[in-house]
Amino acid sequence: MAWARWGCCPWLVLLCACTWGRPKAANLTREDVRNCSTSPPYIPVTAVNTTERLTALRQQIQMLNLSAYIIPDTDAHMSEYIGDHDKRRAWITGFTGSAGTAVVTMGKAALWTDSRYWTQAERQMDCNWELHREGNIVTWLLTEVPVGGLVGFDPFLFSIDSWESYNADLQASDRQLVSIADNLVDLVWGSERPAVPSQPIYALQEAFIGSTWQDKVSGIRSQMQQRREAPTAVLLSALDETAWLFNLRSSDIPYNPFFYSYTLFTDSFIRLFVNKSRLSSETLQYLNADCTLHMCVQLEDYSQVRDSIKAYASGDVRIWIGTSYTTYGIYELIPKEKLVEDTYSPVMVTKAVKNSKEQALLRASHVRDAVAVIRYLVWLEKNVPSGAVDEFSGAELLDKFRGEEEFSSGPSFETISASGLNAALAHYSPTKELHRKLSSDEMYLVDSGGQYWDGTTDITRTVHWGTPSAFQKEAYTRVLIGNIDLSRLVFPAATSGRMVEAFARKALWDVGLNYYHGTGHGIGNFLCVHEWPVGFQSSNIAMAKGMFTSIEPGYYQDGEFGVRIEDIALVVEAETKYPGTYLAFEVVSLVPYDRNLIDVSLLSPEQLQYVNRYYQTIREKVGPELQRRQLLEEFAWLQQHTEPLSARAPRAASLVSLLAVSVLAILGWSA
Amino acid sequence: MAWARWGCCPWLVLLCACTWGRPKAANLTREDVRNCSTSPPYIPVTAVNTTERLTALRQQIQMLNLSAYIIPDTDAHMSEYIGDHDKRRAWITGFTGSAGTAVVTMGKAALWTDSRYWTQAERQMDCNWELHREGNIVTWLLTEVPVGGLVGFDPFLFSIDSWESYNADLQASDRQLVSIADNLVDLVWGSERPAVPSQPIYALQEAFIGSTWQDKVSGIRSQMQQRREAPTAVLLSALDETAWLFNLRSSDIPYNPFFYSYTLFTDSFIRLFVNKSRLSSETLQYLNADCTLHMCVQLEDYSQVRDSIKAYASGDVRIWIGTSYTTYGIYELIPKEKLVEDTYSPVMVTKAVKNSKEQALLRASHVRDAVAVIRYLVWLEKNVPSGAVDEFSGAELLDKFRGEEEFSSGPSFETISASGLNAALAHYSPTKELHRKLSSDEMYLVDSGGQYWDGTTDITRTVHWGTPSAFQKEAYTRVLIGNIDLSRLVFPAATSGRMVEAFARKALWDVGLNYYHGTGHGIGNFLCVHEWPVGFQSSNIAMAKGMFTSIEPGYYQDGEFGVRIEDIALVVEAETKYPGTYLAFEVVSLVPYDRNLIDVSLLSPEQLQYVNRYYQTIREKVGPELQRRQLLEEFAWLQQHTEPLSARAPRAASLVSLLAVSVLAILGWSA
Repeated sequence: MAWARWGCCPWLVLLCACTWGRPKAANLTREDVRNCSTSPPYIPVTAVNTTERLTALRQQIQMLNLSAYIIPDTDAHMSEYIGDHDKRRAWITGFTGSAGTAVVTMGKAALWTDSRYWTQAERQMDCNWELHREGNIVTWLLTEVPVGGLVGFDPFLFSIDSWESYNADLQASDRQLVSIADNLVDLVWGSERPAVPSQPIYALQEAFIGSTWQDKVSGIRSQMQQRREAPTAVLLSALDETAWLFNLRSSDIPYNPFFYSYTLFTDSFIRLFVNKSRLSSETLQYLNADCTLHMCVQLEDYSQVRDSIKAYASGDVRIWIGTSYTTYGIYELIPKEKLVEDTYSPVMVTKAVKNSKEQALLRASHVRDAVAVIRYLVWLEKNVPSGAVDEFSGAELLDKFRGEEEFSSGPSFETISASGLNAALAHYSPTKELHRKLSSDEMYLVDSGGQYWDGTTDITRTVHWGTPSAFQKEAYTRVLIGNIDLSRLVFPAATSGRMVEAFARKALWDVGLNYYHGTGHGIGNFLCVHEWPVGFQSSNIAMAKGMFTSIEPGYYQDGEFGVRIEDIALVVEAETKYPGTYLAFEVVSLVPYDRNLIDVSLLSPEQLQYVNRYYQTIREKVGPELQRRQLLEEFAWLQQHTEPLSARAPRAASLVSLLAVSVLAILGWSA
Repeated sequence: MAWARWGCCPWLVLLCACTWGRPKAANLTREDVRNCSTSPPYIPVTAVNTTERLTALRQQIQMLNLSAYIIPDTDAHMSEYIGDHDKRRAWITGFTGSAGTAVVTMGKAALWTDSRYWTQAERQMDCNWELHREGNIVTWLLTEVPVGGLVGFDPFLFSIDSWESYNADLQASDRQLVSIADNLVDLVWGSERPAVPSQPIYALQEAFIGSTWQDKVSGIRSQMQQRREAPTAVLLSALDETAWLFNLRSSDIPYNPFFYSYTLFTDSFIRLFVNKSRLSSETLQYLNADCTLHMCVQLEDYSQVRDSIKAYASGDVRIWIGTSYTTYGIYELIPKEKLVEDTYSPVMVTKAVKNSKEQALLRASHVRDAVAVIRYLVWLEKNVPSGAVDEFSGAELLDKFRGEEEFSSGPSFETISASGLNAALAHYSPTKELHRKLSSDEMYLVDSGGQYWDGTTDITRTVHWGTPSAFQKEAYTRVLIGNIDLSRLVFPAATSGRMVEAFARKALWDVGLNYYHGTGHGIGNFLCVHEWPVGFQSSNIAMAKGMFTSIEPGYYQDGEFGVRIEDIALVVEAETKYPGTYLAFEVVSLVPYDRNLIDVSLLSPEQLQYVNRYYQTIREKVGPELQRRQLLEEFAWLQQHTEPLSARAPRAASLVSLLAVSVLAILGWSA
C-alpha cells in the first residue's frame, strides 16, 4: 500500500501530493462544488453548514484572547488512522479528507489540503472557509495575526517537530505560540462528539505472540542499562508500542487493533495509562495488575498521564522517548535535561525485528492471505467479462474472502480497488456512490491487506483480462523488473533502505519513467500495516535480519492506467561466495503476477530465473492449502499462472535456425 | 582519489578509519617507536621534544584560568589541506599526520588520531603525550576538567557543528567552553612559526575563466533577491569560494591554488579581505579596487575581517552564510536572527554547476592529463620488469609527466602510488625513505591528479603486468562493473548521489565483497580536487546537469592488494525513450582499463558494449593528441589497449559446436 500517510511522516504525503499530477475530477459538474464568488454564494447539498460551530469556537478563542487557533488532523498518539472522536478538523470544516489543517481567526477560517482533496473540499465546505491550495500556514498567520498576537494550539495534537517549526517561525516574527491543554473544538463539539471507544482490551492468545510481555519489558530494561545516558524510564506514546509490549489488542482505531494508552516504566515499576474498565479480570490478572513490584503492571487512568509524568519528571530521573511519536503535550512536561531523545523509542526499534516465532506467524498469515487474493482473482477472471463487477463491489468481495480466512480480524487498510484511469490517482478508493466498472479492456489495480491474529498483510496486484497495449505491457514489466531487482538484491548488513531503493526504479528510469511514492514500509504482527521505522525512506533505520518490509514499485499514466506490484519481504541472511555478513530479501507474499502483462523479452535470464523460482515457492506453499480447502478451481488457476516463464532467447533461436538451414544445405549438397 | 579528508567532512575520515582494518606497520621495529612504560622512557630519534613548548603553552593556559585547551588540525577556512603556519597541532605534539586533535591541561597532554596514524604518532611524539586510540575527547575532558572548569578553544579553528557538539556536551556537564580569539599555540610558537604566504595573487587569463567576476557577483546578487529571507549580504569563508568568485588564484595551500581571504558583499559593495600587498596594480585594476561602487572590490586587510563583519552585523542586515565552511569565530560575531543559514553558501552551490565553457575547459585538461598518465603506464610496462621502479620514483615520474603538460600547475594532491599490499592501506603514499618496489608479480594502484589552468583532474588506474590470480581478476572486474554500472546509469534530474551510489557496489555485494569509502566527489576548474557539495554522500546536493563528479569504486584485500578504478564524469542530459528530464554521466577521464585484469565472462553484453564505446571515445580524443605530439609508442599502446573487448559468448559458442557436431553427424549419416 503506497499512498496513505505512513506513520508519523506527513512529509511523505506532501511529497506525494506535490509531485503527483492533479487528479482529474471524475464526473463532477459545477453543481457539485461550492461557488463562493456568486451572490448569494452557491452551496452544494454535500456541504456542511459550519456557521454555528465557528461562532461557538470563536467565543472560546476570544475568551482566551487568542488571535488564531490551529486545528490539525492528528490524534494524541500521532496515529496513522484516527478515531471518529478525534476528527476535529473534519467536524469544524465539514471536509472529511484524511489530510488537512484548519486555522480559525476571529474573522477568517482557512483550510490547507493537498491536491488529492481539493475537489472534495469544495464539495464539503461552505463559504465560511477559505481553501488554500498552496502556500504556507505560517505565512498566512503572519498576515492575519498582529505582532504580539497569540496563536493557540492543542499540544497533544502537535508533534515535537511541528511545534518546533511553528514556534521558531512565529517567534522570529514576534507572534507567540500558546499551548492550550483543553481542546477548544472539543469544548464546542460537546455532546455531538462521538464517544471514546470502550470495547474490551484483550490479551492475545499465547499461540500468536512472539514473546511474553515480561520478556519484552526485561529486554527493554536491559537496553536502558546499556545506554550511556542511563535513562531511568521509558515512555511510550505510540499506540502500537503499548499494544506490542503487553501483547494486548482492541479496536479503537480503524484498521489498527489498538487502544488509547500510554506506558511509563522503570526498573522498578510499570504504569499503563488506559481506561481500566475495559480490561477483564483475566486480563488484569495476566498483567499482574494487583501488585506494585517490578513485574506488575499498575493501571492508571488514561486521563492521568499528564499529572503522572509531571510528578515522575520532578525527581532525579531521565526519561527515554522516541520523538517521532511523542506529542508536544507530553514533551513540554519533561525538563529538557531529563530527556533521553531518540527518533524512535527502544520499543519501536526492537519491535521492528521479528523473532523466529513472529516470522513464522507472519509467513503463515501470508499463505492464507494469498488464498483470499487468489480466490478474488479467479472470481474476477470469470465475472469481469460479463460487466457485473465494479471497483466497490469487488473490494467488498475481497474483504469478504479475507474475512473467511482463519484468524481474520478485518482489513488492514481501506482497499484500493481501481480500474483504468482511477489507478493513476493517488489515494483512490471507490465508494458505494462513486466507482467504475471493471472491464476486460482496462487494467485493474487492487492494493489490499488483512489483519489476522498472526500477522498483518499488504499486497498489490495489477491485472488485465483483455489485450493490453504495448506500453501497458512495457510499463508493467519494468515495474516488475524493479520489484524483482530489489527483491533479489544482496546487500551488506545495516544498509539503509534509502541506499538501495533505486534498484526498484532503474528499469523505469532507463526509458524515462518513474513513480513518485516510496518503495516500501515495514509491517507488523497484527499491528500497523505501515510499521515504522522499517522501509526505504531516509527516515527509516538500517535493514536487519528479521525485519519485514513491503517492496512496491509502480507506474502511473495520468488519465489512463496505473501499475503497482507490491510484495512483503522478510530480511534474511544471504549466502555469499566470499564470507561476510550480507542480507537479502525473501518474499512472503504468495500470489503470481499477471502473465498477460509480462513482456518476457525485457527480462534478463537472471530475472526470469528468479520469477520462476518464486512461482515454484508459491506452488509449494499455497498449492497444498488450496487442495486442503478443496479450492480446486483456484488450484488449477494457480498451476496455470505459475507455469515457468520462458525466454524467447532470440540469439539462440537464430543460431538454431542457422543450424537447420545449414543442415538442409549440407543434406542438399551431400545428397 | 578516495582517502583524503573530503572538504569539511571529518566524519568521512572517521568512517574510513573505523571501518578499515588496522594498517600493518611496514618494517617497523620496536626501536622505531617510543616506550613510555620503561624507566627512563624510550624515545626514538624521530620523536620531538615538546617539554618546553608545553611549559610555555601551560603558562598561557594558566593565565587565562583555563582547565584545558583544545588544538584541532584545521585552519580558519575549514580547508582540506592546510599551510605550514597552520600546523599548530603538529608543532605542539610533534605528530605530523593529517588528522588528529590535541588537548592540553595543566597536568596532561593528549592526542586523538585514527588507526592510520597510530604508529606514526608513536614514532613522532615524546612521552609528554598520551596517545588515545579510541574514546571520546569530551568523555576524557569530563574526567580531567572539574565541574565549573573552563575549556578554551580558538573559535577560528572550530566549525559551527563541532562547536555545537562540544558546547552541548560540556554545558550538560557544567563545564564551560570558552572562545579565545588569540590562538595560544601561536603565542608560544613565536618566531619559529612559518610565515604566512606572500606570493602574488593573480587573475586567471580570460581563456581560463567560465564567466567574469562581475557576472558571478551579479548572479549571486539576484539569488539574494529571490531568497525569501531577503539576505542583505553574502559572506564567504571557504578559500575556493573567493578564488572562484573573483577568478583569482595563488598558492597558499598545498595542492590548492588558493589564498587566505574572506569576502563580504551586498547589493551595494564588495569587500575582499586579503593581504593587499600581494596584488599587482593590474590585478587591483582588474578588481576595480580604487572605487566604492557596487561593482568595485574594496580591499580590506585579512586581519580586519572580524571587526568589519561585527560592524556590518550591527546594522539592520541579514547575512547569508554556508555553515559547512564558516568557523565559529565568524559565526559568533553575527546575532542569530541576522543570519540566513544554508549548509552551503550560494557561491558553493553555484560553483558546483559548470557552464559550457567551464565544461569545455575541464574536458580539455582531461585530454592532456590522459597523455601524462598514458606516458606513465607505457613507461611502467617497459621498466617494471627490470625491477628498477619503486612507488616513490614512479610517483615522481608521473608528476614530471604531468608537469610537462600545457597549463600544468602541479599535482592536485599527493600521488597515491601503491604496490601490492600497500594498495590496501587507507591514505597510503610512499616516501623517499619508505616505499615498495613495483613488480610484475603484484598489482599496482596509482591515484593521482593535476592542477591545470583549465581544470583539475583526478584518476585512478590499477594494473598488473604479470599473471593476476583468479581472485584479483574477479575483484578488479567487479570493481570495473561497479564503475560501468554507475557511469551508464540514467536517473531523474535532482536525484541525490546517495540514492544511486549502490549501483557501484552491487557487483561486489553479489559475492560478499564491498569497499568502505565514498564513491565519488565533485572537482573544480583549477580549484579543489575534492570540491563539495557534489558527490555521492548523504551531505551532497542533488545531481544537476553541468556537475562533475568522480566515480571510484574499489576493493581492498588486507595484506594483499588493492583495486580502485576512478574516472571523472560530467552530468549530462539523457535521451530517454519516453520524454522526461533525465540525467546521465559522461566520463571525461580518458585512460583505458587494464585488459590483463578484466574477466570478460563476468560482463553483460550491455557492459561490454559500454566499455567498447568508451574505448572508441578515448581513441577519438586522445589518439590525435598523441599523434600531434609525436608520441608514437604511446599511440600504438593506446590502439592496442583500446581494442574492443569481445565476449566469450559461451551459449552461442556451444550452439556453434553443436552445429559442427551435427553437420559432421549428418555428413557421416548421409555419406
